[in-house]
Amino acid sequence: MGEKTKRLKIGNIEIGGGAPVTIQSMTNTDTRNAAVTAEQINTLAKNGCDIVRVAVPDETAANAITEIKKMISVPLVADIHFDWRLAVLSAKNGCDKLRINPGNIGNTERVKSVADACGERKIPIRIGVNSGSLEKDIEEKLGHSPEALVESALRNILLLENLGFYDIVISIKSSSVKTTIAAYRLLSKQTDYPLHIGVTEAGTPYSGIIKSAIGIGSLLADGIGDTLRVSLTGDPVNEVKCAKEILKALELRKCGIEFISCPTCGRTEIDLVSIAEEVERRCSGINKNIKVAVMGCVVNGPGEAKHANIGIAGGNNSGVIFKDGVVIRKVSAGQLADELMKEIENY
Amino acid sequence: MGEKTKRLKIGNIEIGGGAPVTIQSMTNTDTRNAAVTAEQINTLAKNGCDIVRVAVPDETAANAITEIKKMISVPLVADIHFDWRLAVLSAKNGCDKLRINPGNIGNTERVKSVADACGERKIPIRIGVNSGSLEKDIEEKLGHSPEALVESALRNILLLENLGFYDIVISIKSSSVKTTIAAYRLLSKQTDYPLHIGVTEAGTPYSGIIKSAIGIGSLLADGIGDTLRVSLTGDPVNEVKCAKEILKALELRKCGIEFISCPTCGRTEIDLVSIAEEVERRCSGINKNIKVAVMGCVVNGPGEAKHANIGIAGGNNSGVIFKDGVVIRKVSAGQLADELMKEIENY
Repeated sequence: MGEKTKRLKIGNIEIGGGAPVTIQSMTNTDTRNAAVTAEQINTLAKNGCDIVRVAVPDETAANAITEIKKMISVPLVADIHFDWRLAVLSAKNGCDKLRINPGNIGNTERVKSVADACGERKIPIRIGVNSGSLEKDIEEKLGHSPEALVESALRNILLLENLGFYDIVISIKSSSVKTTIAAYRLLSKQTDYPLHIGVTEAGTPYSGIIKSAIGIGSLLADGIGDTLRVSLTGDPVNEVKCAKEILKALELRKCGIEFISCPTCGRTEIDLVSIAEEVERRCSGINKNIKVAVMGCVVNGPGEAKHANIGIAGGNNSGVIFKDGVVIRKVSAGQLADELMKEIENY
Repeated sequence: MGEKTKRLKIGNIEIGGGAPVTIQSMTNTDTRNAAVTAEQINTLAKNGCDIVRVAVPDETAANAITEIKKMISVPLVADIHFDWRLAVLSAKNGCDKLRINPGNIGNTERVKSVADACGERKIPIRIGVNSGSLEKDIEEKLGHSPEALVESALRNILLLENLGFYDIVISIKSSSVKTTIAAYRLLSKQTDYPLHIGVTEAGTPYSGIIKSAIGIGSLLADGIGDTLRVSLTGDPVNEVKCAKEILKALELRKCGIEFISCPTCGRTEIDLVSIAEEVERRCSGINKNIKVAVMGCVVNGPGEAKHANIGIAGGNNSGVIFKDGVVIRKVSAGQLADELMKEIENY
């Protein structure tokens, strides 16, 4: 993705310049408790998170970074608000990336301290503009429009570039999906820095997943976005799970079996819902990149299912099994799930 | 939406030409059982579904339409595959729209019978192209590409236009999200007929919701789409729920309270997740179009929450309540949810 963006390294992970889109999340533990925080980071990593961010609200948290780094293997991002000293300390303590807005930390000297601390250690900085923390003059002039977010990002970029710092990642998030999409589209035409995409404060899981899928998904579908975070209230593992599904839906990451199943209708003669759920559950541990179709209808089933690697289409109390477009046998309804699983395992 | 598309009437509902985007779903009951089918249609309508489709696999089902129509108030769409006689019968029995592909029903005389039966009664026809049922020659030439779906749609349109029939709605669905987006973008440049959008066979709820949100959402974000269906395996009420969230996320439909809540991080000092979930649960019956923010952090909270109609931002064991951008009081953590609910109810 982002073929035209600059490529950067966050620890051992590359982002931008056509590198695979990476998934980020953020801990919600107390960063000062290194053991608990490292444990959550490792859980996130195990679930497919590539880069993890922690909040750094004070010096104890900044110092915990040293300990946390010893216990994890994914790159660590320190999230800093306002306090340049915490940024410098986090860099010294080994974070792999900083998230800070140079425009928020005061005079040029302070920005220079941060840029130097990062520059010496090859630590990239993410400028994280969001609609809730725009500069006063920009907010007065442009409100919370896409243009306002872009102007704030460009201003922050300039602060770093003027100090000779170019290892920059940018995000411009809004809690409005429409504003987020428009802002990133605008920004992507004006900068080559890698873009970190997401919808901020997306909310509780159900609506948050939908807002994130629309916002992040429509940008990725247009080739915009180098790394992403889904923001959901609750366990951050859910953010990673949703992020993986978004990438999978857009064929940007293969992770396990892809399911196609029809919504069932008045033509359905088998208990498709149970079969689809059972097959999905039994497949959750299988790490094969194949497409499996569970279709309930002799009308659409054969047509759709033939493009799957393996599929079933159900008829009156029975069904057929397909493999790479060829019907391989007919089985009774009660055996459909078992027989399909057998074929998936042998594929 | 679809400002430039032609406006049509499906029963008493308008679609296209800038009319609000409508939500469709499809029953999964046996259409021949009119009572059970009407009951599901009414449940769907109560949950926000504007137009409901039923499968018409045989003559008994086509005749059930008369009975079903007496028991429901939303427009009814008859879904026909291949059999032109069932299409004509469904039209005579009072369906409000037909879904049929003229290219699939045989010679011009048959297509004319269907077009005449619909034309006389002002019943629109949806041409429902999908990647699983493309014409052989198109499939051989163009595979399952976006171009193939568009070519099939244009060919089907021409069959009806040649008979003087123009009350057409079009869908060109694929189970690939990328193909779906590309196909509708292409088609929207080549036709003025209203577009019915959706991702077909999206699958089981979790991944299906994400695929649908990306596919449908990114089209709607660009102003493409006049009516939509989310396809999910299982209870069709879930399709309507997801569809409403997609429209809400893009500010295309107001339905109840919109939540903004932050994902929590190492700075969070209150039990935000419980508060957000409790508030969302207690608000589910409240029909006010307001924006409510539940923020866990004194750093981002006040900035983001000030754009909500009502919000809370939590600090150390306590929080503040905002109303239209003004902090109205400080309350203890234990009272946050109750106090917020009080403000929402009084708003």
